[in-house]
Amino acid sequence: MKIHEDQLIERIRRRIPSAPGATLRVGIGDDAAVVRPSRGKEWVLTVDQFIEGVHFLGSAHPPEVVGYKALARATSDLAAMGALPRLFLLSIALPAHRYAPVGKTRTGSWLDEMLKGMAKAARRFDLRLAGGDTARSSSTAPASGSDRGPDRAKVAMQITVLGEVEAGRAVRRRGARPGDAIFVTGQLGAAQLGLELVLRGLHRQRRWQRLLIPHYYPVIHIELGRWLVRRRLASAMMDLSDGLSTDLARLCRASGVGACIYRQSLPCVTLPPQLHLRGCDPLKLGLHGGEDYGLLFTVPKRLVRRIPRDTNYHFNHDGTRLTRIGEIVRGRAIKLVGADGQVSPLEPRGWDHFRAS
Amino acid sequence: MKIHEDQLIERIRRRIPSAPGATLRVGIGDDAAVVRPSRGKEWVLTVDQFIEGVHFLGSAHPPEVVGYKALARATSDLAAMGALPRLFLLSIALPAHRYAPVGKTRTGSWLDEMLKGMAKAARRFDLRLAGGDTARSSSTAPASGSDRGPDRAKVAMQITVLGEVEAGRAVRRRGARPGDAIFVTGQLGAAQLGLELVLRGLHRQRRWQRLLIPHYYPVIHIELGRWLVRRRLASAMMDLSDGLSTDLARLCRASGVGACIYRQSLPCVTLPPQLHLRGCDPLKLGLHGGEDYGLLFTVPKRLVRRIPRDTNYHFNHDGTRLTRIGEIVRGRAIKLVGADGQVSPLEPRGWDHFRAS
Repeated sequence: MKIHEDQLIERIRRRIPSAPGATLRVGIGDDAAVVRPSRGKEWVLTVDQFIEGVHFLGSAHPPEVVGYKALARATSDLAAMGALPRLFLLSIALPAHRYAPVGKTRTGSWLDEMLKGMAKAARRFDLRLAGGDTARSSSTAPASGSDRGPDRAKVAMQITVLGEVEAGRAVRRRGARPGDAIFVTGQLGAAQLGLELVLRGLHRQRRWQRLLIPHYYPVIHIELGRWLVRRRLASAMMDLSDGLSTDLARLCRASGVGACIYRQSLPCVTLPPQLHLRGCDPLKLGLHGGEDYGLLFTVPKRLVRRIPRDTNYHFNHDGTRLTRIGEIVRGRAIKLVGADGQVSPLEPRGWDHFRAS
Repeated sequence: MKIHEDQLIERIRRRIPSAPGATLRVGIGDDAAVVRPSRGKEWVLTVDQFIEGVHFLGSAHPPEVVGYKALARATSDLAAMGALPRLFLLSIALPAHRYAPVGKTRTGSWLDEMLKGMAKAARRFDLRLAGGDTARSSSTAPASGSDRGPDRAKVAMQITVLGEVEAGRAVRRRGARPGDAIFVTGQLGAAQLGLELVLRGLHRQRRWQRLLIPHYYPVIHIELGRWLVRRRLASAMMDLSDGLSTDLARLCRASGVGACIYRQSLPCVTLPPQLHLRGCDPLKLGLHGGEDYGLLFTVPKRLVRRIPRDTNYHFNHDGTRLTRIGEIVRGRAIKLVGADGQVSPLEPRGWDHFRAS
């Protein structure tokens, strides 16, 4: 099926919430979108890529998951600033049909399923599609006639998300001070465990399906981020996208501080006893596993008692679990304190696109 | 040279204007950028892709041109709404080094040159870099060991630009009414002529260098767009990115009108007599050639006399030339009136990503 650019845009527009309203004055179909700011608010914006073969596997990840996750990851950056998501732009490069192997086109049912997943995320996060750009992706020539070649049709998406936050109240990475308590949401390493199952081909086994959920449909903590902003409780915040060890190092570097993390306090993912994954242990997954998209934030000591223990009560849509995992300290070192009290340096060993290559 | 993601971001930050200020409250280095709106203004935003092998040729286009043009094309969409450019986000996927053929890496001097061109455009359009995203591009495996294979290292960029416009005053595509005069800026087809020279390998000949400029460094009509907004002269506007025949059809469809274009009035590019390009004639280039990034706009009849004849006086930084090329008419048809008065339908034969494939 050959498609025209205008038809493609129309298919996207029909599937994803995109009607103009009080905030979105001009949406899809003009040269650019026009957005009206709310009084006393600032805009928070970021862009995130989601590329086949880099961020997802076209052969393993269901298209609906691809669409959901592409939008969820970008939205996570808004949650990490304490912003309320409002709008997004979708930029997508799709392989031209004539080089796509039969049954592997990305402009037919794959695209519909992908958009379905993205629409689901848009409704969940209350995001409206304001515009975007479509193009043919560059990997269009067949690699020696085989559909298994490295140059198989590839999809690349980029999501620009915009949210609003009360002026001057966005929570940055750089506000952590010695003595602040460090918190994380959810389980650490749960998304990485899901990815490991996919990479080992175990994701098709029904008994492990449940373990794929954090990898497929990460929870985005918008409500918690908003709550922390409104009550001015967080001194610094970011989302856990590349793994605790890497992300905590970034937060500490931005704040000019060090940190002390307690091994015993880490809410690491638990592996079912029947599941044996060579090289995967809960501590490594918890410290270095990426894509959890939980929030990592610090709270001044005197405010810690205001952080609810039973977060299900406050943030009941996703049963967010909050765990205090350590303290901000003077200096630059980030240390891990073991169960036996032994202290070791915590090296950043999470995800880095260019190091991983 | 292997690079880390954080180092790459630092290299970009150092080269491109990105310091926070009155509008940009939080810039590069946090989860997201924070932007403070000006009183009485709306935000105009759009995203544009620039992909190696699709929008530019890594082997032919100088990296500085790639960087300049990537930002210029995106900014053109802001000019087309009458907005003042303020900020941009850069999303970039670079090939991992280990698969890049020697001398063809995109993370060394190529990247520096590209960023230099982008910085030049940022300064010219008064744009500040607010953030972005970096990733490894997916075309990383060598195609049968050859550096000439179709799967050579590829770069993909996406630029999100934000501008401001007086609330309610952005000029849309849909305001054209029967009787309105149709104007274009500059020469039509000049950019396409430059591309033809590149595609035919003539761009290395010194005598044609001058003809490459419109293709390499398109003029973006920010000042004219702002002037039209402030004086409320344009009833509809868009930029000429895919060729007059395709773009005019879009403007007419959005406005629910037809158009009548006069062949004799079209400011088509002129080909030097010594230059013989098979299949290229000025009229075809002018009607269907893409990437001019001029403005196409309509003006109600009673306001036409306010459009200056000597635009050099008003918009003297780029010597913008304005040409009245026809009229908006009732109905849906778009017609071309020849020198002999003969009328023929004008079919949209400009650029379409998916049709071209």
